[in-house]
Amino acid sequence: MKKIFLALIGISIFSCQQSPTKNYEDSTKQELLFPKGNKVPNDKFDGNVYQAILSDDGTRVSNVTFEPKGRTNWHNHPGGQTLLVTDGVGYHQEEGKPLQIIKKGDVIKIGKNVKHWHGGSADQSMTHIAVSIDHEKNPSQWFEAVSEKEYQAVR
Amino acid sequence: MKKIFLALIGISIFSCQQSPTKNYEDSTKQELLFPKGNKVPNDKFDGNVYQAILSDDGTRVSNVTFEPKGRTNWHNHPGGQTLLVTDGVGYHQEEGKPLQIIKKGDVIKIGKNVKHWHGGSADQSMTHIAVSIDHEKNPSQWFEAVSEKEYQAVR
Repeated sequence: MKKIFLALIGISIFSCQQSPTKNYEDSTKQELLFPKGNKVPNDKFDGNVYQAILSDDGTRVSNVTFEPKGRTNWHNHPGGQTLLVTDGVGYHQEEGKPLQIIKKGDVIKIGKNVKHWHGGSADQSMTHIAVSIDHEKNPSQWFEAVSEKEYQAVR
Repeated sequence: MKKIFLALIGISIFSCQQSPTKNYEDSTKQELLFPKGNKVPNDKFDGNVYQAILSDDGTRVSNVTFEPKGRTNWHNHPGGQTLLVTDGVGYHQEEGKPLQIIKKGDVIKIGKNVKHWHGGSADQSMTHIAVSIDHEKNPSQWFEAVSEKEYQAVR
């Protein structure tokens, strides 16, 4: 009788352990919603950053993943840009404004010619879709790297 | 003793029913990655379709959710359009081509002035981000509704 008890408890524990695994798989799938693309060179970016260009006909649509501490240099978009954060937590800063924490579900509108940078947070990755408006005629302009002091200015 | 058995089986079933509920919540959260917006009027759409405009500065970025059987009329975009499917399963068709099943993770590029329609599938919702390029200067042109025969032409 004791064995039957133990067997029932065992079945109960085993059955309930299946679901967390399923949840983890779902979460991983979500990070890979769109292609990750290739690591971008470090002339305009710092750290590990991956980009896949999804379409590029006048306006450029790309999927960008920043590993923790990975970030763009300061830059601007003469046509403006919209960021749609699809996963993780990162940072965004416009020149002269405080650093802002951005996360999954956030939509960030960057005005024409506004100098700014974006990247992963100190300990988490961040993935966003970037819509660079009118990118073909007015490509991004790139400036200096984000300093450690600027990067660590998160409150 | 029989009561203890029944209690153990009850606990086992109850515990395991918690996880599917959790999974369902996760799945719902994902559908709400970006705002759902408001139901659009049925002059250019059929059925239940929701749209939130996320940014609209030259190029329009919007989040569109089609309930099952919900769809656009036939239309085109003089500047072209890119669809990024973030959830569910739906249909897409360009004039003169077979109906195509599209699902979460798919990227669909629609050329300039190509007449087409998109919507949810017969039994599932579909959510996509729509990037309508140069929409301000060249807004979409709208045509006739998609007939039941056209909608049901899925293979």
